[in-house]
Parts: sequence; structure tokens; C-alpha cells
Amino acid sequence: MKKFLTLFIILGITSCTNETTDSETVSTDKDKTYNWRLVTSWPKNYPGLGMAPERIADLVEEMSDGQMTITVYGAEEQVPAFGVFDAVSSGSHQMGHSGGYFWKGKVPAAQFFTSVPFGLTADEINAWVNRGGGLELWREIYEPFNIYPIPAGNTGTQMFGWFNKEINSLEDVKGLKMRIPGIGGEVLKEAGGIPVTLPGGELFTALQTGVIDATEWVGPYNDLTFGFHQAAKYYYYPGWHEPGPMLELIINLDEWNSLPKHLQVIIETATKAVNQDMLDEYLAKNNQALTELVEVHGVELRRLPDDVIEEFKTISDQILEELAQEDETIAKVYNSYKSFKEDVSEYHKISEDAFIEARNK
Amino acid sequence: MKKFLTLFIILGITSCTNETTDSETVSTDKDKTYNWRLVTSWPKNYPGLGMAPERIADLVEEMSDGQMTITVYGAEEQVPAFGVFDAVSSGSHQMGHSGGYFWKGKVPAAQFFTSVPFGLTADEINAWVNRGGGLELWREIYEPFNIYPIPAGNTGTQMFGWFNKEINSLEDVKGLKMRIPGIGGEVLKEAGGIPVTLPGGELFTALQTGVIDATEWVGPYNDLTFGFHQAAKYYYYPGWHEPGPMLELIINLDEWNSLPKHLQVIIETATKAVNQDMLDEYLAKNNQALTELVEVHGVELRRLPDDVIEEFKTISDQILEELAQEDETIAKVYNSYKSFKEDVSEYHKISEDAFIEARNK
Repeated sequence: MKKFLTLFIILGITSCTNETTDSETVSTDKDKTYNWRLVTSWPKNYPGLGMAPERIADLVEEMSDGQMTITVYGAEEQVPAFGVFDAVSSGSHQMGHSGGYFWKGKVPAAQFFTSVPFGLTADEINAWVNRGGGLELWREIYEPFNIYPIPAGNTGTQMFGWFNKEINSLEDVKGLKMRIPGIGGEVLKEAGGIPVTLPGGELFTALQTGVIDATEWVGPYNDLTFGFHQAAKYYYYPGWHEPGPMLELIINLDEWNSLPKHLQVIIETATKAVNQDMLDEYLAKNNQALTELVEVHGVELRRLPDDVIEEFKTISDQILEELAQEDETIAKVYNSYKSFKEDVSEYHKISEDAFIEARNK
Repeated sequence: MKKFLTLFIILGITSCTNETTDSETVSTDKDKTYNWRLVTSWPKNYPGLGMAPERIADLVEEMSDGQMTITVYGAEEQVPAFGVFDAVSSGSHQMGHSGGYFWKGKVPAAQFFTSVPFGLTADEINAWVNRGGGLELWREIYEPFNIYPIPAGNTGTQMFGWFNKEINSLEDVKGLKMRIPGIGGEVLKEAGGIPVTLPGGELFTALQTGVIDATEWVGPYNDLTFGFHQAAKYYYYPGWHEPGPMLELIINLDEWNSLPKHLQVIIETATKAVNQDMLDEYLAKNNQALTELVEVHGVELRRLPDDVIEEFKTISDQILEELAQEDETIAKVYNSYKSFKEDVSEYHKISEDAFIEARNK
């Protein structure tokens, strides 16, 4: 999702004027108002994930009957897309909306709270974080940065992406120039491919002119509006690299602690509602968009061959094991994640997966 | 889930004393307090689904900073388990927590907003209701009853249940005495089985003494605490009859309209958060409970044979088609549901299902 970060040139870079009043320190005054600022890693109002912070802000203002307002700034408006974590950590902004795996340089374990290859799906990461011990670990690893995280949206399983080269075997992966960030890119490289870093805005032309052979993005809903079907021949699945990325609302911990309890619960609850809402929106719109891509635009869907999937999985497992060996904190998060994944995978085999298989017969 | 309704004998039937103050009529007074009563179809604090109304009540009280309190009454405490819809419709109680398919005698289309055989999973019904036009239809069909519904929890895919007879072919379904309510029961009957209606409290003994050959219940988490593994030999999957039952918070429409806007948003948002929380809880606990059932208690998991699943599906489709022909309202809901299901099934095949298959390789 680094792709979003430099996707849109913000036409008018606003200076960091501070039109809203910053929150003040601890108070028990019931009528005291709070006017907070939220910075994001997304272009303002980007469909789907970019709408989440606005929705959280609306709910908070409505539920608090105006006691708290949150002004949302898109990427680059006040801080760079990748500057969200630092802005919230320093307290220059009270809140941010982003994805934890962007901070892997500072907090490598944060990647487990977004998505890792062959990891948890949206439902599973919700269950692990909210009911399986994940949230406590997440708060523990962000606490040294003076940041309080709340799960804040999920796109669901992403697609592997758009290709101008067929992938019929592992041989075809060798030399494949694909724009794919993060651990997914490391896996591709290990398999012989060439992961490329390119800003989203350049992808369409890069695909069309053959600068890259392939790119991942999100899923049918976001991909359709981007027009990738006009620049690539095949749409590959499954999206093994990001099975259910969870986004985050991050809050400066001092500011969080200064809030009266009812506003804390309002923020947590609004964010939880938006976490579900985003998944609902993607699921409803992805299926419509897929129909349009296939039926109107004649897009050719392709499934990755089994041996390619298996090789990617073997490499992913190795990379995650190596990551876990870097330090104790990563190991603790990794072990909790892995153990939950093993149990929940077994359960899904006899519950939802078995049902879906029965329904599809 | 009719199973819950007569499950627990309430030891002390309380009279309908009205300790809390009922809400009053429309007011713009910001300090006015609201003390509402919520009746449920579940035993008070029944694990998982029975905890949802308490959690909604807690969130509403906290977010409104005490302006609104909701007192929760378990089944039979103030009204019968099946009396929840009427109590809310008449306004004797402002709120109820239950499952829409219990009202199929009055509102046959309500079944689509809970679960139907081979229907939508939890994620899919969330997406259909919240982002696919379902909620508007649901509110339309409850409006003549002066009721406003909000999605309020999901158990996820249930298990087919506990058996003392092996099901190796369609022949084994003939004469099978199974406790299975609703459309699932109609399907079993059509396939030659004998659906039985029994209160939950009698199921264990009925299984043990051979009065019934099988029973469905919920899933590992609730089933383990019930001890069914001590009375039955096999635990069958998949749960084709209830793939993702959505529960409901129902509110008297006049009372709803009398609320100030911020309390309406607080109730909607709290309920949405609890809708996700219940699924998270079931998913996290089901996988732990399954491990215990299999590893500690040696439960034998069995998958229904393909020809049995296919026959159940053929019959289910017929029954739903017939239901849709009863009147225009049912047809409208059915068509919306069916069309969403067809699209989303196709999308899932190349997204989450394909990913899960890849992960399981």
C-alpha cells in the first residue's frame, strides 16, 4: 500500500496553519470542547480506505454532540504520507490514520498488525487482535513511541495484480519486473523476480510501456477506477501477499490519556464500527467491480500455478522466521500470531471454508 | 437457535416491575436522561450471543456519559423469549435483542436477515445489509410493525451438529430423527428425515437415550460448555443450514424517533461495534474449543458426504424459491439477497477462498 503514498500530487500544498484549537491538558469540565487534527497516509477522500478517517471524525462529532471535532488532512497536506507516525508520536498532531507496516523500519513487529504473506484474513486478524491477545501486544510495542493504536479498517484479501507476462511456472517468475512493496517484494526477489518500487501515479504508464511486467494494487473496486485493465493483459489471483490488511488509527498517548472516559469510548467505538464498515464496502463494491471488469472489459482472470504458490509460501515462511529472530519483541508477536493462525486455520477448515466449498458445489 | 428459548428455567420469575423510568416524549433538552428497557430471547449472560445486549448497554451508557441507560432483561424475565418482537412493537419495551427468523410467522422475509440454508456468510451478510441495499429492505419490512432494526451480532458459520448415527449416504438421512429448527428442518424433512422440536434443556438426555439421533446447536465454543461430546459420537460439518446468522437489535420506532440525534448515532455505532465483537469472540473461542474437543475429548469430526450436501442444497433452493413466491415483499428481499449472493460468491472464489486454498496447501 506504499502505492498510495505518492499517488496523488497534492495540487495546493497547504502550509501547516493551525486553524483548529489544539486540545488542552487534563480536565474534568464536561462542557470542554476538543478540536483535534488527524493526518493520514492517503490522498484525501481516496475511495474505500481513504474515507475511513472522515467517517470516524463524523461519528465522533455526532456522538459527542459536537464536544469533539476532528479535522482530517490528506497525505502531504500537513505532513508527508510517511510522516504520520512521527507526527503523532511527537504530538504535533493528535491522531493519524495509516497502516502499521509502513513503520517497519522503527517497529518491525508492526507488520503483523497490518498483513504478512500467507497470514490472517480480515476476520481472523480482527479475532486475533480484538479477542486473541493481539491488541495488548500492539499497544505494548507502540507505547515506547507514545502512541495508542486502534484497528481502523480492512480492505479484505487483495489481488495478486495486473500482468503482461503469463506465469505458468516458476521459470516465468525469474526476471519478472513487478511493482510489489514490503515482504511480498522480498519474497518475489528470493524467487528470482525483480521487485520494483514505483509511485502509484507512474504505474499505468510503466505497465503500458513495458518498464514493468506487473503490478499489484488493491482489488477490483480500487483497480477498476485506476484503469489497469487498459494497460495489462491478465489479472492474477490469489493475493497471497496481503490476505487481509488491517489499518490503524493512532493517537498520541498523552493526548489520549487527557481525554474524559466517554470521549475515549466514543473514539474506540466509532473506529470499531468503521473497521467493519470498510470491509463491508470493499466486499460489496469488489464483487460489482469484478463483474464489470470481466463482463464489460473482458479481463482475463488467471490463477497462479500451484508450484509458484508453494514456492512463495516456503519463502514467506522463511522470511517471517528470520524476522522473528531479530529480537524478543518481534518473536513474541510472531509467536502469538502464528499460534492463532494455526488454530484458526484448522477451525476454518471445518466451518466457513467447508461451508463455502459445499455452497460452491 | 430456537434452542435457546426454553433452555434455562428462570428460577425466580420476576414480575414486570418497572424500576427504571421509561423514556419520555420528544425533547431538545440536552440534559434529559433516558432509561430504557431491553428484552432478549436469550438467557441472561448466555456466553457469546447472550452477552451482546449487555455490551451494547455498557457502550451506550459510557458514550452518552450516563445520559442514557439500558437495563437488559433475559428471556422470560419480563416477556417470553418469543414475545420480544411484540413487546417492542407495542412499545411496552423500547428495545429487544433477538434473531429475525423467530418472527417468520409475522414477517417471513425476516429470515433472510438472519440466515437461510446455503446463504450468506457473516462477512457477506454484513456487506449485503450494510452496503448492498439489505438494511433499507429490512427497515421497510419492519416499519409496519413500528420497529427499527439494527444488525447486532453474528456467530459465524455454525456446525451441522452432534450425531449418534453415521451419515454415509442419502439412505442414512431417511428416518433420521434430528432436532433442527426452521428452514433447515424443512429441508431435512423433504430429504426423508424427521425434524424434531425440543427445548435445549432436553437435548442432552434425548441424545443419550436415543429419543433423537442428532441435534444441531451453535459451534465448538457453545457446544463444548453444553457437553454434547458426552452424549454423541460424531461431530458433523459443514453447517449448511446457518452459514452466518445475523442477530438484531430492534427498537420501537416512536421511541427511536423521540431520541436526540446524538443518542441515535451512539446506539447505531455501539451496535455495529458489538456486531463485529461477537464474531471476533466466536472465532477466537471456537478455534480453542475445537482443539479441546478433538485433542482432549477425542471427538470424531465427520464431513457430510457430497451427495447428501448436494441433495440438501437442491431442496433448500426449492424451498426458498417457493417462499419467494408467497408475496411481493418476500420476492423483493429474496431477489436482492440472491443477486448479492451470486456476485459475492464469484468474487470470493478468486479472493478469500482462493487465498485460503493457497494457504492450506
